This record gives sequence, structure tokens and C-alpha cells, in this order.
Amino acid sequence: MVNVAILGFGVVGGGTARLITDNREEIERLTGDTVNIKYILDLRDFPDSPFADRIVHDFNIILEDPEVDTVIEVMGGSHPAYEFTVAALKKGKNVITSNKEVVANFGDEFLAAAAASGVSYRFEAAVGGGIPVISPIISSVRHNKITEVRGILNGTTNYILTKMFSLGESFEDSLCDAQERGYAERNPDADILGTDAARKIDILTALVTGKLVPTDKIHTEGITNIRKADVLAAEKLGMKIKLLGRCIIEGEKVFVIVAPFMLPSDSALFGVSGVYNAVEVIGEPIGSVMFYGPGAGAGPTASAVVADLTEIIASGRNYAVPTFTKDEGAASDISELVCASYIAFDGACEACVKSVFGEVTFVESEDSVAFVTAPMSEKAACEKIARLISERGATLKSRIRLV
Amino acid sequence: MVNVAILGFGVVGGGTARLITDNREEIERLTGDTVNIKYILDLRDFPDSPFADRIVHDFNIILEDPEVDTVIEVMGGSHPAYEFTVAALKKGKNVITSNKEVVANFGDEFLAAAAASGVSYRFEAAVGGGIPVISPIISSVRHNKITEVRGILNGTTNYILTKMFSLGESFEDSLCDAQERGYAERNPDADILGTDAARKIDILTALVTGKLVPTDKIHTEGITNIRKADVLAAEKLGMKIKLLGRCIIEGEKVFVIVAPFMLPSDSALFGVSGVYNAVEVIGEPIGSVMFYGPGAGAGPTASAVVADLTEIIASGRNYAVPTFTKDEGAASDISELVCASYIAFDGACEACVKSVFGEVTFVESEDSVAFVTAPMSEKAACEKIARLISERGATLKSRIRLV
Repeated sequence: MVNVAILGFGVVGGGTARLITDNREEIERLTGDTVNIKYILDLRDFPDSPFADRIVHDFNIILEDPEVDTVIEVMGGSHPAYEFTVAALKKGKNVITSNKEVVANFGDEFLAAAAASGVSYRFEAAVGGGIPVISPIISSVRHNKITEVRGILNGTTNYILTKMFSLGESFEDSLCDAQERGYAERNPDADILGTDAARKIDILTALVTGKLVPTDKIHTEGITNIRKADVLAAEKLGMKIKLLGRCIIEGEKVFVIVAPFMLPSDSALFGVSGVYNAVEVIGEPIGSVMFYGPGAGAGPTASAVVADLTEIIASGRNYAVPTFTKDEGAASDISELVCASYIAFDGACEACVKSVFGEVTFVESEDSVAFVTAPMSEKAACEKIARLISERGATLKSRIRLV
Repeated sequence: MVNVAILGFGVVGGGTARLITDNREEIERLTGDTVNIKYILDLRDFPDSPFADRIVHDFNIILEDPEVDTVIEVMGGSHPAYEFTVAALKKGKNVITSNKEVVANFGDEFLAAAAASGVSYRFEAAVGGGIPVISPIISSVRHNKITEVRGILNGTTNYILTKMFSLGESFEDSLCDAQERGYAERNPDADILGTDAARKIDILTALVTGKLVPTDKIHTEGITNIRKADVLAAEKLGMKIKLLGRCIIEGEKVFVIVAPFMLPSDSALFGVSGVYNAVEVIGEPIGSVMFYGPGAGAGPTASAVVADLTEIIASGRNYAVPTFTKDEGAASDISELVCASYIAFDGACEACVKSVFGEVTFVESEDSVAFVTAPMSEKAACEKIARLISERGATLKSRIRLV
């Protein structure tokens, strides 16, 4: 029997407790062992819960109980998740988490502590909710020469963008709708400004490069500036706008970026709608593979947490373990990243656009001029935009990169 | 150093040898070990190949060499793949295969032989080409209560159907085009009649139920009867026609079927085009997850073969091992399977359709009448079709089930 303790009895903690209980037979068939939820740590009491007798308020009860084999940290936030994780690993307990913030900030330290204690630290649920992503990348894809990992990593923003496309709604209206449905928080900044997606592409980058970048070193743009006019322009181009996290590996350079991108219809990610997430891995000789599914929610996230648990039980702990170390300088300056851009100006003419950008494809728009450039470096694109503004007095309305 | 022998130096064998050579560094970083291709078994010689000095013509050289740790069987066909696999496993060598035919026919026997010898038998490449499917289902999804596994499992037929939809071509013209591009064999029967997809859903069924069904017990329909008129009708309904392999689990019943299905646009499989494959797993509490990528080709298939190899090296062989036994009666009779159907008749009228089928949705068609029924059992649908034929002298032109 494997005794586990769950830290945090919120949405994910509750879902995990229910999954371990409801799918007891499936877990036993798979692992040859039974799982017992010995403790659930929460500040609150839950007198009406079937798990009421497992609730404790003091982490030390869990830490000091040698019967607790594995700690499931689903509290969220950096503290005290960090302190509890380090203490549990040092005590020789496996730790599983769904908390992308703590992984993106301290994952390297946790992996080192786990290795030192001969236990596992796993975080399948931290990226892509219920979708198996981390484990298959490590065990089934990483022997390829990987050139890019990219994904729709945030369900809230994907829901908002899907609404903007399907109903022609503004960003503000779509955000309100997402908040009403509970897909967006009252304070939606972490989602709409791209922070949540940045943490996830940060973790994926660490998996494929071995280097964990501080999240604040990742070039991050949200979706708050996307206008109805941009959605219409994308539709005219047969494209969709998606908030992507991308890790692009070109020789020694690693470009990590979170930003809205226009995607052509033959992209694997084009059809990923609503609150769904997807992660695409591109490499040689595999080509492109994609993992798709629900990016959040109690049940899916609990499934990913329990996937880690069954892997720990069945594998003797040492299999498909990611390894990475922190590296402040691992992300290259994106000024050398090359891509085409959709750009819209007020107060500019087609002739002056051509004189600065060379050959472009114009798109019908309510702006004075909108167009798609040839692929060029970020640096070149920014310089040309600045030139059009300074020389012609034009106003930049939008710029969205193309995949 | 891990010494491997590759059986068969065709497309997949060549791709596997190249991948092991070209991605030497990635494999070593992942497994902490190096892989040496000691032998390649083929009837032919390859004097101009960089692997010319590894070619052998006698399997016994491989079998009797105690340095050979793992045998990679990529010959295809049941014999001598069966004999070679059994012999290698009994000698204590791991076996990896991309050969779905031999897995669907004898996989249970191989797994038992591998367990008896304390080695691994793995077949990630047998389903979905390069897409990680088997490993993530076992290690990340199978603790869910799985209600269905379904997939677009054959790239040739998906290419043909994609052409029929995008260009309005007939089945015959699309097949010719697929043959010209090398996507279909000169004798395309195994693809277009559904046999290849049946072997793959057979393997997936074994993974999630623990029971391997003889392939000839699987209800299998190909795509040869799909008409231009059916494609047009699907488009009017906002649907696409895809050849699906489905394993539907309802309590004690397991329905396994390969047939063309009409899919609505919100289905995860709707956007899977061309030679791509995808496998969707539906369960509680995960919801629906999908694995998508190239379903064939030297590079992708080699990637899946080497994924098995790195898992064997890194995991000490005993992790994420599927287990199943043969069960002649595991697939339930599909007469109780419930689904809606699109049906087209010649020589029938809307009123007589309604008198037999009750409320239906009519679809504009070049046939005398075409419609979508309410969900009903296979048995009921067949009875009603027979009644319309016998009572009204109508001719059945098409019937395609809906997902």
C-alpha cells in the first residue's frame, strides 16, 4: 500500500482525491498496488466531505510520518509550496505537483533534491492539464533532434480568441463571457498577459534543452491588444490568431517567446478551439507530433497527477525523469528570430509601406493600411516599424507575427 | 554499450539504422548508454550502404551472439517474423517491432515469452507510425475509466478521403492519385478494405481491455463504397467522412469496429487530414485526449522504434509493459451498438422512409432520398433497411454511421 498526502483541497486536490478513490481498481490493475490517501492538508475543515477524517492543518504531521511515501502538492503559488516541497524531498518522499509557478521558478532545485534523496519529483499536470505531454516528450520523442516545441498552453486565452473569431466579439466582451463561465479569473492578468503560458513554455524548454530560463527572461506578450480588425484580417488571410508559447532551437540559439501568432489552416494547432490545449513537437526524423486535450479542470488535471503517481509506483521511481539546471542566459535575444508579420498602420499609405518594407501582401482593413511582410528578423521588423512612424508620422495599430 | 540487430533493411529498417547513427548524441544523453548496430538481417546485400559490413543473411548468427541485447524486427508479415521473435525472446533478447500484423496475431504469446525470459517486447511503431500512442496510453491514461479509444489509423485511406472532400474526386481517382504518390500500394486491399486499421484497433483494444481479439472477429468495412454523393451529403451536414477504428466499452460489452463514420466539426478527429493519423482516448475523469502525427514513413516509424529502445535501456526493461491475453469472445456482437446513420436509397420516398424509420433529417441528394436517422441499435437499423427494401422495392445506395 502506498500512502499519499495531498497538499491543498481545492479544485485539483478534490479531483485527485476523488480519482484515487473512484478509480481504485484501475490503479491497482495498472500498478499492482493500492493507494491510500492518508492526509489532506488544508487551512479549512471539510466536515461534510467523505475525506473529512483525513484533513490536517499542520504540514509537519505529514512530513514526520514515515508511512507517507508521496506528497501531492496542488496548492498553487510559490510559497509555502516551495518550502513544503523541499522539506518533503529531503525527507525521502516523492513529490508530484500541478503547480507550474513553483516548477518554473524552482524545478531545477527540486530535481536535484529528489536525485540526492533517491526519490521522484514529477509535474505532468503543470503543462497542458490532463494531456500527457511531459512524460511522452521525455520517453518517446526526445531522442529526436528537436527544432521546436510550441503550444496553445492557456485555455482561458484560447477560449477568448475562439469567441472573437466565431462571434466577431471584441476582446473585452469575450473576456467578460469567459469570466461569467468561470473560464477566466476575476483578475485575469496571469492568463491574458501571457504569464501562465510563459511558465509552461519555460518548463517545456527546460525539458528539451536541459536549461531552465527565469520566466521574466522570456519575451512575453498577451492578447489584450488584439482588435476586431485583426481578427477580420486573419480571416481574410485564411488564418487564426492563437496565443502560442514557442521554443525554437536553431543551432546554439534558443528563442523562447509567448505572443499571439497568426496560424495557417494547415497548422496542426489551427483547429484547437475553446478551452482545449495542445502541444506540438517538431524534430528529426519524427516530423511533427501533437498532444491535444483539456488544458484545465479538476478531472483532467487530477488524471495527470495520478499518471505521475502510477508511474512512480510502477517504475520504481527512476524512469522518465526530466533533468535540467537553471541558466539565466539560455534564452537568446529574440532580435535575431526570423518571422513574417501582419502589421496595421493608421496614417500610412501603400507606397510608403513598400518603400520601407519592400514587397508585402496588403490585406483589406479598416486601418489606413494593413499588410503581411516577408520573413525578416525581429530587429529588422522593429527598425522598419520605427522608421515608418518617425518618417511618415504613422501610428502602429497592430503587429502580429506569423508562424 | 547496447548491441542491437535489425531484422529487415527496408524502409523502416533503413530509417532506424540512420536514426540510431545520426542521433547518437541525443540517445546517449537520454539513456546514458550508446547503441551499436551489430547486425542487419536481410536476404539482399547492400554493398553501397554505410551499413554494408553489418549485413548478415542468417538469423542464427544474431540469435547465437550473446552480445546482441535487443532485436528490432521490422520485416513485416507474420512469418518468419513470428519464429524469429519467439526464438529471440526465448534466448533472453528484447524484441521491438513495427509489425502490426504479427502483434495483432501473436502479441499475447510474445508478451508471455518476454515475461518468462525477463525481457521486453514492445511495439510502439505498430500503431500510429511516429506518434507516441501505446506508451502514453499505458503510462499516462490507463488509470482512467476508459469508455472509448478511436482513431484515424490508416494514412492511405485518410489521404484518399481527404482528396475526395477537398477536390470532389471519386474514390477511384483518389486511389490512383495515392498510388502515384506512393501513399498506396499497387495492391491497396489491406488499406482500403480496412484490414490494416483493424489490426491497429485490435492492438489498442488489447491495451485498454487486456484482451486480444482475433482480427477476423472485428467488424470491418472499408472505404470502397463511398460515393461522391455521400461526400456532398456529409458536406451539407457540416461533417466529414473518416475511416475510424473504434473500441467502445459499455459496461461488460466491448464493441470493436472499423468502418467509415461521419464526424461533426467539433470532433477532435475532424481536422486530421492527408496521411496523418490520430488516436483519441475518452475516459473519466480525463475527458478526451488525442495523439496526432505522421502515421507512416521511414523517419517517424523509426522514431517510434527508437522510443521503445530508449525506454528499454533507460527503464531497466520492466516499465510501461502492456499485458493482454487472447480472447476469441472479447468483442461483443455489434448488433447492440447504438448509433445514428446516414442512409441513401434509390426508389424510396420521404413518406415511406418516415413510416419505417420514424423521425429523420433529410439531406438534399442526387439519390431519390437521403437522411440521417435517430440513434438506434445496429440490429434495428439493419431491420429497417431490410424492410424498406422488401416492402418498397427500394435500393440501398449508402449507409454510413455517425460518431
